[in-house]
Amino acid sequence: SLARRCHHRVTAMLDVPFVPFCTFLGTLGLLCVAMVGTWCQHWRGGFSLDGSSRTFNWHPVLMVLGMVVLYGAATLVYRIPNTWSGPKLPWKVLHGSLALGAFILTVLGLAAVFRFHNSYGTPNMYSLHSWMGLGTVLLFSCQVGIPTLDPPNPPASRVFHPHLLFLQWAAGFGAFLLPWAPAWLRALYKPIHVFFGSTILLLSAASCVSGINEKLFFSLKNGTMEYKLLPAEAVFANTLGLLILIFGVLVVAALARPSWKRPDSDSLDSRQVQDTLGR
Amino acid sequence: SLARRCHHRVTAMLDVPFVPFCTFLGTLGLLCVAMVGTWCQHWRGGFSLDGSSRTFNWHPVLMVLGMVVLYGAATLVYRIPNTWSGPKLPWKVLHGSLALGAFILTVLGLAAVFRFHNSYGTPNMYSLHSWMGLGTVLLFSCQVGIPTLDPPNPPASRVFHPHLLFLQWAAGFGAFLLPWAPAWLRALYKPIHVFFGSTILLLSAASCVSGINEKLFFSLKNGTMEYKLLPAEAVFANTLGLLILIFGVLVVAALARPSWKRPDSDSLDSRQVQDTLGR
Repeated sequence: SLARRCHHRVTAMLDVPFVPFCTFLGTLGLLCVAMVGTWCQHWRGGFSLDGSSRTFNWHPVLMVLGMVVLYGAATLVYRIPNTWSGPKLPWKVLHGSLALGAFILTVLGLAAVFRFHNSYGTPNMYSLHSWMGLGTVLLFSCQVGIPTLDPPNPPASRVFHPHLLFLQWAAGFGAFLLPWAPAWLRALYKPIHVFFGSTILLLSAASCVSGINEKLFFSLKNGTMEYKLLPAEAVFANTLGLLILIFGVLVVAALARPSWKRPDSDSLDSRQVQDTLGR
Repeated sequence: SLARRCHHRVTAMLDVPFVPFCTFLGTLGLLCVAMVGTWCQHWRGGFSLDGSSRTFNWHPVLMVLGMVVLYGAATLVYRIPNTWSGPKLPWKVLHGSLALGAFILTVLGLAAVFRFHNSYGTPNMYSLHSWMGLGTVLLFSCQVGIPTLDPPNPPASRVFHPHLLFLQWAAGFGAFLLPWAPAWLRALYKPIHVFFGSTILLLSAASCVSGINEKLFFSLKNGTMEYKLLPAEAVFANTLGLLILIFGVLVVAALARPSWKRPDSDSLDSRQVQDTLGR
């Protein structure tokens, strides 16, 4: 019948396998990094460590590379079918290492903008972009440490200090990775970790958008180069912003797709949580 | 044992019932609307329909009210335990009506900013905020219409035109609500609708943040009122931006919580989809 044929056609269309989809995501992520690098190199004067706007330029590049692309790669590790059988520890190490890499780049990206502001006497942390961005990084630090469940360093989540965040991360890494964290705690914490994993990626992408928007209003304001006249730089950077959002949404969609999840993730861990919660 | 006591304490802490949580969300949503209204009334000169910046002021108020708060309410309808038994149609009508209300306010909110730009000769749709915001509204229109699956109006999703979007919405409303949409189509479409329901809410909140950030840079630029000196208005509007984000994330968290979902949603619809997809 017609309905049956439609159904099969739509089903075949939606049934993309994981590996080609991930290859596409990887390409899109690399395109975002290449575009943010090109923007800063070609239109914004390139890179340096002298405290000028060329030091600032490391900020967008490191944030897109760390908080979006590498972070996105870290979230997708358990969707690789090879991880579904055999020992889980090597994959946990890979997931944690990618997240650690993303976190280090993020802290360096923050250092770049603080250094730039300080060398010009500009106040730090006044714009809504900075509040949202730092909030996202603090949520990220809660993902890697487990501050509320980890008595040794509770204040670290409140005070922003790169090396404290790093220590906290190391503590959380141990707590979640090593066998001495009790099973009920890990089972209780896992769905929270998974939920915030996706949420933080979307918040990171959204922080990038508000930052690109703000930077274009700062940079494109005189004569024929006004933002509202949409010069080539504005079209290029607006497109970059949309591609970052599309990357974030597609990674979250891949994470949400039921058939790409670890087959035991529902039967084992979720049930464990439900038992733990008494449901 | 200590582990058992910890476990019970953490479980009790996390086990918030749905109704108090929703009351809290409703209060937070109303606070956001009250704050955006206060910002525009007290600091930005109030409201009018004369094409001045007082016409623009309708834009933030209608977007927060429509695309964030009313939209959020529409997404939560099927989490009300009363909806789980008895006929589903009245709840579908409620969900659709709240979404329609949100959509009408959104279109009026867009009309406000277009009218303001046109009366000053400012170009429309140049900033990344506008690209992201319109992209989010177009995704919203795909939620209410089903353009790719609905042959009569495929081009409506590409051309922005308020009354076309409305017609498309009406078509989609019919297709999803009325019994003549085939079950396999609705089963195939539902997880996509649910996924984008949450995603669009976060994108809306993120669009609000980039818009508030941009507006503060426009408005606070001379003398003692510079944005970087964080005058009262900046603290107030930055706080509003964070509260909008927190509202969005908490609604999405409520939607994701397994024990608050319709008990039949997994057993019936998802299995139907899995059968449809041949898994």
